[in-house]
Amino acid sequence: MIAKRIVALCGGIGGAKLALGLYRALPPDSLTVVVNTGDDFEHLGLSISPDLDTVMYTLAGLDNPETGWGRRNETWTFMRALESLGGTTWFQLGDGDLALHVERTRRLDNGDTLSVITADVAARWGVRARILPMSDQPVRTIIESKDTTLGFQEYFVARRCSPAVTSISFRGVDAASASTKAIQAITSPGTRAVVICPSNPYLSVDPMLALPGLRSAIATTRAPVIAVTPIINEQAVKGPAAKIMAEMGLPVSPVTVARHYAGLIDGFVLDEADFERKEEIVVPVCMAETLMHTLDDKIALARAVCAFAVELAAEPQRRRTSP
Amino acid sequence: MIAKRIVALCGGIGGAKLALGLYRALPPDSLTVVVNTGDDFEHLGLSISPDLDTVMYTLAGLDNPETGWGRRNETWTFMRALESLGGTTWFQLGDGDLALHVERTRRLDNGDTLSVITADVAARWGVRARILPMSDQPVRTIIESKDTTLGFQEYFVARRCSPAVTSISFRGVDAASASTKAIQAITSPGTRAVVICPSNPYLSVDPMLALPGLRSAIATTRAPVIAVTPIINEQAVKGPAAKIMAEMGLPVSPVTVARHYAGLIDGFVLDEADFERKEEIVVPVCMAETLMHTLDDKIALARAVCAFAVELAAEPQRRRTSP
Repeated sequence: MIAKRIVALCGGIGGAKLALGLYRALPPDSLTVVVNTGDDFEHLGLSISPDLDTVMYTLAGLDNPETGWGRRNETWTFMRALESLGGTTWFQLGDGDLALHVERTRRLDNGDTLSVITADVAARWGVRARILPMSDQPVRTIIESKDTTLGFQEYFVARRCSPAVTSISFRGVDAASASTKAIQAITSPGTRAVVICPSNPYLSVDPMLALPGLRSAIATTRAPVIAVTPIINEQAVKGPAAKIMAEMGLPVSPVTVARHYAGLIDGFVLDEADFERKEEIVVPVCMAETLMHTLDDKIALARAVCAFAVELAAEPQRRRTSP
Repeated sequence: MIAKRIVALCGGIGGAKLALGLYRALPPDSLTVVVNTGDDFEHLGLSISPDLDTVMYTLAGLDNPETGWGRRNETWTFMRALESLGGTTWFQLGDGDLALHVERTRRLDNGDTLSVITADVAARWGVRARILPMSDQPVRTIIESKDTTLGFQEYFVARRCSPAVTSISFRGVDAASASTKAIQAITSPGTRAVVICPSNPYLSVDPMLALPGLRSAIATTRAPVIAVTPIINEQAVKGPAAKIMAEMGLPVSPVTVARHYAGLIDGFVLDEADFERKEEIVVPVCMAETLMHTLDDKIALARAVCAFAVELAAEPQRRRTSP
């Protein structure tokens, strides 16, 4: 097997874009993607892994470019029929998407691990990147707001991120083991970079960092660790990252993201729109266009990240800051 | 609640046709349909009740008139996606049909009974007939052939009824209780007839009769019990009834069906094509057109059955034969 040289950590839509850029920019066997499973949930008796699915669909070319989630050429007969039965319809499940949930649930019930199922599905769809769920044990992101405690999808989908977040926790994380393959990939001497994709730091990346083995693998790898900003011009490209920062009393800024990863990262990719914030970031900074509309945008950002990694690796003194 | 005056016992496609005829021929609250659940099975982690679904779809007007099973205006995106995942595809599940299986499985896992779920679904779809699964406990029809033992759907769908049947059994039947509501309906003094629909005697009706409570309710009710032939002119209208008769060394004939129900029935509806067999049947016979292509055919047969019931009830001496 050819060594996987770049490891990307990501959540759903935004992170998957850069993962696709890396997949297309690099030789196909060079990429390992470690994916957040904190927003996995059980719904209608099915085990659903939204971030993992988005990454798989995206790398397989089966993704829906209009929504960013789900499958292209999807039909919605199931949801309409479920509605007519009085079933729960706040979480949209396309007919084709459902096949993945039904088959995964069946195999999990049969004793297969999420890692094995994911690898099988990716292989069947011809994906040559290695896609790894962060853990094979359930970790569930829980959102606390002043009035209520919500599971991630209740917060994110059913409530459309409207409750003000007071804290976020990861149920099950103490009993869960990080993916052994992810740890090996991150710490392997052959790894040329670990890339924290422009995913939500609190909702998509923190669940991974909450796994002790994964955090320490990132902290100790000799490969440069690079985070790409999900915040441009005081706004999140997508999702509630900026809203959560404000609710937690943090400045809505890429600097807040860089500080969040202090002690873990060797470099930070800042959007060109935020050039004037560069001096506030204590690790080396790479300026890039981080908005990814087209495949070319994704590949260009991926190449900028890889070039930055080469540059950081060549530096005689590593600048990883302490927490 | 208005008393349900006619009780029909049926399996899937053929039986559901007469159930629909009765439903349309009678005031809408007059019909109770007791449905075979011996061909229920667990597939892809879902609890599937093919006969129950066919009856519900048929009475709700949601049935697919081309196949006789499944839903009209169905899409098949799920199956195609499942195939691309290497999933099991021998049992066809339409996207809309799937909603019923997912919702039922979820509710069963939640502790609801099949009876309650069925009643809720029927009510939501505006079905005013009462549809009762024969039991809330699992009973599974098992087919023995010379070489192999098969679950019903493996035999019926995956193997297309090709193995020669040596015996049929009903796993779980001893531990299962017949539907209390079905027994009440069959034995209620207000019941005007119990109709054994033209379903497969061995595969669709026998699982019901194997439930001791149900068999004795039929044997002891004061209402006339009428069976409608599923065999016309030495052929089954649909399915493997004739093939199984031949494999079991029985004459392929409506007379075999009437004999099969000996001790339970007070009258037998014979197809007009089999007029010359009339004298071989020891219970009173009603000649009718039993092939049901159109809704009018179904209603006409239902009316003939009801008229026959009135006639039988008026007879001073009941002719139920002993087994």
